[in-house]
Amino acid sequence: MLQNILCFLEVDVRKSILHAFYPMQRAQKDRLIQRLIDVLPQTSILASQEELKPYECDGLSVYRQVPALVVLPETVAQAQAVLQLCHAEKVEVVARGAGTGLSGGAMPLENAVVLSLAKFNHILNINKAGRTAVVEPGVRNLAISEAVSHLGLYYAPDPSSQIACTIGGNVAENSGGVHCLKYGLTVHNVLGLKILTMQGDLIELGGESLDTAGFDLLALMHGSEGLLGVIVEVTVKLLPRPELAQVVMAAFDDVEKAGQAVGDIIAAGIVPAGLEMMDRLAIQAAEAFAHAGYPTDAEAILLCEIDGTSESVSDFITAVEEVLKHAGATEMKTSASESERLQLWAGRKAAFPAVGRLAPDYYCMDGTIPKSALPTVLRQIALWSEEYGLPVANVFHAGDGNMHPLILYDANKPGELQRTEDFGARILELCVQSGGSITGEHGVGVEKLDSMCVQFGAKELQQFFAVKDAFDSERLLNPGKAVPTLHRCAELGRMHVHNGALPHPELERF
Amino acid sequence: MLQNILCFLEVDVRKSILHAFYPMQRAQKDRLIQRLIDVLPQTSILASQEELKPYECDGLSVYRQVPALVVLPETVAQAQAVLQLCHAEKVEVVARGAGTGLSGGAMPLENAVVLSLAKFNHILNINKAGRTAVVEPGVRNLAISEAVSHLGLYYAPDPSSQIACTIGGNVAENSGGVHCLKYGLTVHNVLGLKILTMQGDLIELGGESLDTAGFDLLALMHGSEGLLGVIVEVTVKLLPRPELAQVVMAAFDDVEKAGQAVGDIIAAGIVPAGLEMMDRLAIQAAEAFAHAGYPTDAEAILLCEIDGTSESVSDFITAVEEVLKHAGATEMKTSASESERLQLWAGRKAAFPAVGRLAPDYYCMDGTIPKSALPTVLRQIALWSEEYGLPVANVFHAGDGNMHPLILYDANKPGELQRTEDFGARILELCVQSGGSITGEHGVGVEKLDSMCVQFGAKELQQFFAVKDAFDSERLLNPGKAVPTLHRCAELGRMHVHNGALPHPELERF
Repeated sequence: MLQNILCFLEVDVRKSILHAFYPMQRAQKDRLIQRLIDVLPQTSILASQEELKPYECDGLSVYRQVPALVVLPETVAQAQAVLQLCHAEKVEVVARGAGTGLSGGAMPLENAVVLSLAKFNHILNINKAGRTAVVEPGVRNLAISEAVSHLGLYYAPDPSSQIACTIGGNVAENSGGVHCLKYGLTVHNVLGLKILTMQGDLIELGGESLDTAGFDLLALMHGSEGLLGVIVEVTVKLLPRPELAQVVMAAFDDVEKAGQAVGDIIAAGIVPAGLEMMDRLAIQAAEAFAHAGYPTDAEAILLCEIDGTSESVSDFITAVEEVLKHAGATEMKTSASESERLQLWAGRKAAFPAVGRLAPDYYCMDGTIPKSALPTVLRQIALWSEEYGLPVANVFHAGDGNMHPLILYDANKPGELQRTEDFGARILELCVQSGGSITGEHGVGVEKLDSMCVQFGAKELQQFFAVKDAFDSERLLNPGKAVPTLHRCAELGRMHVHNGALPHPELERF
Repeated sequence: MLQNILCFLEVDVRKSILHAFYPMQRAQKDRLIQRLIDVLPQTSILASQEELKPYECDGLSVYRQVPALVVLPETVAQAQAVLQLCHAEKVEVVARGAGTGLSGGAMPLENAVVLSLAKFNHILNINKAGRTAVVEPGVRNLAISEAVSHLGLYYAPDPSSQIACTIGGNVAENSGGVHCLKYGLTVHNVLGLKILTMQGDLIELGGESLDTAGFDLLALMHGSEGLLGVIVEVTVKLLPRPELAQVVMAAFDDVEKAGQAVGDIIAAGIVPAGLEMMDRLAIQAAEAFAHAGYPTDAEAILLCEIDGTSESVSDFITAVEEVLKHAGATEMKTSASESERLQLWAGRKAAFPAVGRLAPDYYCMDGTIPKSALPTVLRQIALWSEEYGLPVANVFHAGDGNMHPLILYDANKPGELQRTEDFGARILELCVQSGGSITGEHGVGVEKLDSMCVQFGAKELQQFFAVKDAFDSERLLNPGKAVPTLHRCAELGRMHVHNGALPHPELERF
């Protein structure tokens, strides 16, 4: 599915993020290969254009760069040796899992060695009593749940790409998913990590117990987008698979009413396993594509899933139905079987490719807002959609306030690309003004570097760099990603938008 | 209650943690006061011995040090000016909330300025719809819940000291409490922070939405024990107060059976609001003190609280009773009213002072272990208790694996203090060997610096210092606490114990 998501990217502007180095010279590359052969099997070193080509991008496929080399170590000692070598030679390193990321976090750099963790694909230990699993970073997200399903257990975070994406990449991006409303993000489900620093030092963080002493470097690694260390082992928390899951689909004749209903469900003390929302355009596209049984005349639908024991699911489903009815739902449908549940989800899961059929191009946004701001933000996006003359399909994790507005446009129409850009930037600024953020689950990578200038002020960005330097003072690990330089922000003339104030707050230029 | 907890401390050894500076010279102190008068009201500067004396310790009262000065700023600008001044003058700063911490995190240093946040005691904003509150760091934990109770909301983390302790201190120590099993630690309930760095820079971290871009400095600040920054504003998450809470007390004739029952409850998919355990000695002491209705012939009791809607509480209480019966409970009692619930908790809440009546001295430990290790660890502690001839009362947050073994001893008996120390150190090593940690909720402070040498290896400690330096390169903020130097660990000859292996793993000396 991820391959179908072609998020638009303003390629020219963003080119400037990459270090304007000359390509690695032939002699330097040859010397590096010679030294790598001392520490890696020759088959673990890819150096020809044919071998390197498949690594030229991650899920953000509009932006491509063939790296200098790709290495595929199989052991911690090999990965350590690669890092020590690159550190000594001052060669940049980009770690890579499955390459399904959507913001270019694993996109290669011209002079960099891509360190693929693809061969770190073993489940090392399953502790049934303690409900933990120790896995290598290249293990696929879904493979963990498959390996423990016979014990009635599973690993909770479920990004859409869970068939393909790896747990190491999940940690690097702090991935979410439909069920993170109830079960938390990756950071809430990982107990321990082993990482290698750029110098090749092995560091153990966390463990199997709830909390540890010392600074919380375990949390710090989550969402650090490969800038602080290379993850070589992950200890995850496993949960007992719920006895039952049921989903309620509710239709509304007004998108704000649906937004309000989200708040009402949470306010009623209900903790849904998932709470998703789609607006008219998304519903129509999804229904035409997946025939999930959505009412195509509705302005919005909510999908609210409850899981747990049979009794508690039954109680909470009744409570959800009451709240939704009171919130003005015009139609409701509750799954009566597992196949009905999967059918109701089928439309939501196919929403991105379905919307992709409505226009030549779309720009998928990923921002968060406080739940209470949902009706206001939706209204504003609808107003702007008219103003710009660009349709927007809204598909998002409503319970978390994680929005994915999809702006439809045609890059071949003169000026439409620029208008889409402006519109998108205003949506992200609105997210920040509402007290939210410019990324919910896709990360910053190379895609949102400029928006970081809106989210953060100079002092915060300086502190990010100070922390980066505490791990990698020579900035060799995935440089130029995730955190923009002050110089870049100043050059772009972007403004830092102050958190948590609506209507438009005083703007601070730096 | 905290005043009654006199945790034992090996004073002589630990003196060495403090910088062996000479006291601040009179002239330097006078100059500092003169400059402080420019930025603070004179009444906010305490300089005489009489005024300074009350600040000489925190909740770890066996260890005392009068600071050079105490300042009580009232505004962010004042606190910022104090930090800028101290930074310029290279004067150490120790931030302080209510001073209820149990590990000496707020203990003054001889040449330091204590920066009290006592006047930062205002609730700045309550957002009912978004269920958040913005508060100053000196607001007491319980005062937040009191201020929002008319909205049916509360702030979940509830350390025993919640009447007195402040939210800023809670963040600095990442405080837990009886209910953190279900509702998480402080880090899971704080959405945003404003901090001042040692240089006086104001940094905003997080916000009202679920996740933000950039490195997770918000999580990093939690449990950083005042070493990275001074917290000047906290945005907390509020929860709807549960409709009902009920508690089941279950007695067991064997402490291991009780430990196993803890795992059984969690394995059954039940999420108790609290799950506490006490062993025979603790039960007897608590019952004699508080008359809670505990069976004094039991080897262990569990207290399992369920909260939620009336229907779900009723369902889960039935489920808990079934699990406990199946696990071999010899007696059970379920609260039928709020007063019965409070009575059942009264013994647990009074357990520390109650145990304090059994012996002239006790040494309270605070370590964590994976839940699955509970029976093994309890058995080992019982064996060592016989071997050392020192009784141990076990009172702990069983659901979290956060143990508080209390070793009873008499400091006046020759050699008993040393034996207690050895015993305590072995318990903490056992926690680490089991995959746990040397502190659950009390922090490291000055108390557990030596145990940090057991928990972490040289590479981890070096990385902690690198992160410290990324915020405070001159190490002026609460120096000498929380993270021991490699030199100290080497001098003590303590061993780094490898995580997650039982029985005794290969030990690595560094």
